[in-house]
Amino acid sequence: MRQGSGFLDRPRAARLMAAAGLDAVVLCQPESIHYATGAFAGVAAFWRRAGAAFVVVPADAAAAPAAVVGDLQAADFAARSGIADVRTHPIWVEVSSLDDPAAPDVAAAIARADRAAGRPEGFARPGTYDPRLSLAELAGILAERGLAGGRIGLELGFVPAADLPAFEAALPGVRWVDASPLVARLRMVKHPDEIARLRLAADLSLAGMGELLGQLRGGLDAAAMTALWRAGVAAAARGRGVAGPQSDWAYIAVGPDGFAPGGPARAGDVVKIDVGCVVAGYSSDGARTAVIGRASRAQRQVFDALHRAFDAGLAALRPGRPLREAHAAATAAMHAAGFTSYSRGHFGHSVGASIWSEEWPFIAADCDVPLEPGMAIAFEAPYYVRGLGGFIVEDQFLVGETGLEPMGLLGRDLFETG
Amino acid sequence: MRQGSGFLDRPRAARLMAAAGLDAVVLCQPESIHYATGAFAGVAAFWRRAGAAFVVVPADAAAAPAAVVGDLQAADFAARSGIADVRTHPIWVEVSSLDDPAAPDVAAAIARADRAAGRPEGFARPGTYDPRLSLAELAGILAERGLAGGRIGLELGFVPAADLPAFEAALPGVRWVDASPLVARLRMVKHPDEIARLRLAADLSLAGMGELLGQLRGGLDAAAMTALWRAGVAAAARGRGVAGPQSDWAYIAVGPDGFAPGGPARAGDVVKIDVGCVVAGYSSDGARTAVIGRASRAQRQVFDALHRAFDAGLAALRPGRPLREAHAAATAAMHAAGFTSYSRGHFGHSVGASIWSEEWPFIAADCDVPLEPGMAIAFEAPYYVRGLGGFIVEDQFLVGETGLEPMGLLGRDLFETG
Repeated sequence: MRQGSGFLDRPRAARLMAAAGLDAVVLCQPESIHYATGAFAGVAAFWRRAGAAFVVVPADAAAAPAAVVGDLQAADFAARSGIADVRTHPIWVEVSSLDDPAAPDVAAAIARADRAAGRPEGFARPGTYDPRLSLAELAGILAERGLAGGRIGLELGFVPAADLPAFEAALPGVRWVDASPLVARLRMVKHPDEIARLRLAADLSLAGMGELLGQLRGGLDAAAMTALWRAGVAAAARGRGVAGPQSDWAYIAVGPDGFAPGGPARAGDVVKIDVGCVVAGYSSDGARTAVIGRASRAQRQVFDALHRAFDAGLAALRPGRPLREAHAAATAAMHAAGFTSYSRGHFGHSVGASIWSEEWPFIAADCDVPLEPGMAIAFEAPYYVRGLGGFIVEDQFLVGETGLEPMGLLGRDLFETG
Repeated sequence: MRQGSGFLDRPRAARLMAAAGLDAVVLCQPESIHYATGAFAGVAAFWRRAGAAFVVVPADAAAAPAAVVGDLQAADFAARSGIADVRTHPIWVEVSSLDDPAAPDVAAAIARADRAAGRPEGFARPGTYDPRLSLAELAGILAERGLAGGRIGLELGFVPAADLPAFEAALPGVRWVDASPLVARLRMVKHPDEIARLRLAADLSLAGMGELLGQLRGGLDAAAMTALWRAGVAAAARGRGVAGPQSDWAYIAVGPDGFAPGGPARAGDVVKIDVGCVVAGYSSDGARTAVIGRASRAQRQVFDALHRAFDAGLAALRPGRPLREAHAAATAAMHAAGFTSYSRGHFGHSVGASIWSEEWPFIAADCDVPLEPGMAIAFEAPYYVRGLGGFIVEDQFLVGETGLEPMGLLGRDLFETG
């Protein structure tokens, strides 16, 4: 599918489908369609119901993909995706064409153009869109390719339960298999262009973090700190000659709650700064901890233990080794430091352009997925101690052949405003 | 549920559940939970899988609601929602408490506090969250209330097909019925606080539109126009002494394509401006059409027909009458104007804080839903004519006892920069 602007690795998809015994995958989650094709699934996908758009990816990597999209976006979808076989279903948005803007009667000229384009007499658009029409197009594609009796992957982690019966009715011979895990595994290894987006996002975010830390002082609240971070991000973007992030997010917590934003910072307050920039759909994720003034003994004890746990976990993040080893190493370090009840579910996650900034796989106790070159992950050691504050160290890394490369550099020590 | 900050009308919910033969509804879509309780369903809901959080609404309006949320957000959820029975399941985020920040050994003090709070030896958090644990809590609630053998509504337009079997396993005696249509019907009639948000959003957006139209000229592209609109919105917010919108959206199309943003505006270009402001989750929706210079005869012919169709549809939008009557009236007006092939799927929709700005019900040919006092709708007459431009008239209205009240006032004529 790399004839277009998508990131789908067909040979890798073919291997995963062969291992799962699938004849094809039908993508229908909007994020997956955009990932695979670089094209917008269309306005009908905004309700997050199934049936607005499909992309058919045959297991045979030599077989061309096909798509079904709403008629409004079809031409744009074909151009961006490079997919030759794009079929359409009518959605609610009325579009006509006019060849001659100087025609004496525009209404008559449009009616003629619609007839010439094959619009039948009495054509009526559905109120929104009709999944029976889109599924009929999907059924046609699968039948033509000899897949109407196949084992077909469908993202059942996305398809609402109310929408599944229409798939079964339209394609009674298909054995539908949940492909959400397979799609997550596909997306886990990044294309170089995805890495470039994540790298820029992390770089801008860390530059903003440096700016915020440099200006941090008592009296500022979480909103003012967010504004300082954003200004630093914007300045970094200008300095690098690139557009700023399309959006961003900031979870900044001031004071002893550790999680809630809190009020204006006071001497002795812990400030937890967990922020991300979104570049072309790809969100960075990184975090630092600061103290207004000097850290107390208790704050220092918690942070130092976490920092050591971060380093221990990072050392266990090695290409070829399962992610659970880093979870075990970080947890063991916290326990060894005396925090014997400490139990964090995951110490980070893959990053990309999924439904939110934390995507599968997770650095969790039960995660057997081995770290693979091309993965991009956020590794984090957080601890929210109510009564003391929120503590975290987090950085984003690219997985290489032999080790991890941080995406951006900024000291990870507890920052004290002095 | 009005003891908290939610908008759920329990008597109305009871009537709808009685009509549907339901004993209770279990809300699990994040937007529905926030609507019903005013509280955040929690970070575990960000993946949009089922099982992160539930709100149980019994059909008996006198029976108290109950909720299940991740332990991280439980206290905040209880405080904001006013729900007394909030049960929890552990999510991945580790939180402990420290009573005495001056304790000689913080690690030991935290371990003691965790034990005192009832944390069992060997407690381990799941990698993200475990739907078996949240569903066990839900099963407990339903059993205690005698509902474990009931007909229970579940939002099957949200629950992914892959997640439904866990509900069936945890509650084998329940007959699950799709409650997504019922929830949409509940949300269709707005609470006064919802109306206030929609009114402010529409007011700010229209003020920005006025500002943009006043400054519209050749040479500006869609991005520059968006910036002018935003500046007008921000100025209006300052003038009214309120915070600006939390976010906004703008679909501005310049030139003959009618839908794509296009390049810098040139003399004779049509400019379609469809914009919205989001205030506390509630998005406005409104649109106007302009021409750089003077409209051509063809542009005038299309716009005037649309404007008459808008007026005809608006006259047919009457409390107690089904929405399809407005669709029929607007369509008939376009056909009578000679645009005999014109077929728009809907002429607008309910507005609120659903998954996107267009929410059910739709002003469509098959919509038998009668207009009810308290509904807030966006009524629109759009026509995208490739080769000529995009044309639209759209305003937001509050439905009263006897008629519709526009939310904000700005002339609907085709705007010519002169």
